[in-house]
Amino acid sequence: MTNWLTDDEQLAWRTYSSATRLLFDRLERDLTSQSDMPVTYYELLVILSEAPDRTRRMSDLARFTRSKPSRISHAVNKLEQAGWVRREHFAADRRGWLAVLTDEGMAALEAAAPGHVESVRAHLVDLLTPEQLQQLREIHQVLLDHLVDEE
Amino acid sequence: MTNWLTDDEQLAWRTYSSATRLLFDRLERDLTSQSDMPVTYYELLVILSEAPDRTRRMSDLARFTRSKPSRISHAVNKLEQAGWVRREHFAADRRGWLAVLTDEGMAALEAAAPGHVESVRAHLVDLLTPEQLQQLREIHQVLLDHLVDEE
Repeated sequence: MTNWLTDDEQLAWRTYSSATRLLFDRLERDLTSQSDMPVTYYELLVILSEAPDRTRRMSDLARFTRSKPSRISHAVNKLEQAGWVRREHFAADRRGWLAVLTDEGMAALEAAAPGHVESVRAHLVDLLTPEQLQQLREIHQVLLDHLVDEE
Repeated sequence: MTNWLTDDEQLAWRTYSSATRLLFDRLERDLTSQSDMPVTYYELLVILSEAPDRTRRMSDLARFTRSKPSRISHAVNKLEQAGWVRREHFAADRRGWLAVLTDEGMAALEAAAPGHVESVRAHLVDLLTPEQLQQLREIHQVLLDHLVDEE
């Protein structure tokens, strides 16, 4: 027997689903129009910028962004063409590759960051009370713990 | 001057962003593997199933799903090829098109629904307390009201 959603559950689910789609579409549109950079590329540049020597193994990029290796490989190719990332062999393992953020990549990230942060504030953070932001974090930590276990 | 995110805001934003991506990827994977139907098609079939005479104007489908008309047009073409939707001229306006859910489409939706609901329960609804589900709805109603006004 299917345990259908109650009216309350359905309303919560539909509101959540519509709002997140609109929000992430909007953030994508803002970032690409301002900086010609999709959000997934921005996130890779952020991860590299926070890494020691601005360098990460390709396999770590896949893990951190919870993306398939093939998707990361494709994205890093594009970032390499833009001159923002360069690939190097991993010394300890000739089969492994490292991605390194270039100075041009760091500059592109620094140029894009203020607009992106403004957009995240305008369409999410500044609309919520500190209490709601805390609720949002707690709820999504529950989901994240569950989904990561499931992978 | 950029008003950067505080540590708390950044943590909330990153947790939210990672969890929603994982969640929607997972729901997509579950639905396509069980029913060979992406979530966007499922949602169009749901909207049609709830409409009078299982019929909606194409422009309404775009509005309800907050999608570009070209995207809806593409999706309805695919649904028509599957035999789940048929298109008809809108009598009052020869330039307008209606999408009608066929009996086969209704049957496909009914076959897909139990698995999809189970997946939404397992990865979202049943993980949260009723209070958290209420918070999720309220937070996303705020975002939705803002984003719809912005469109």
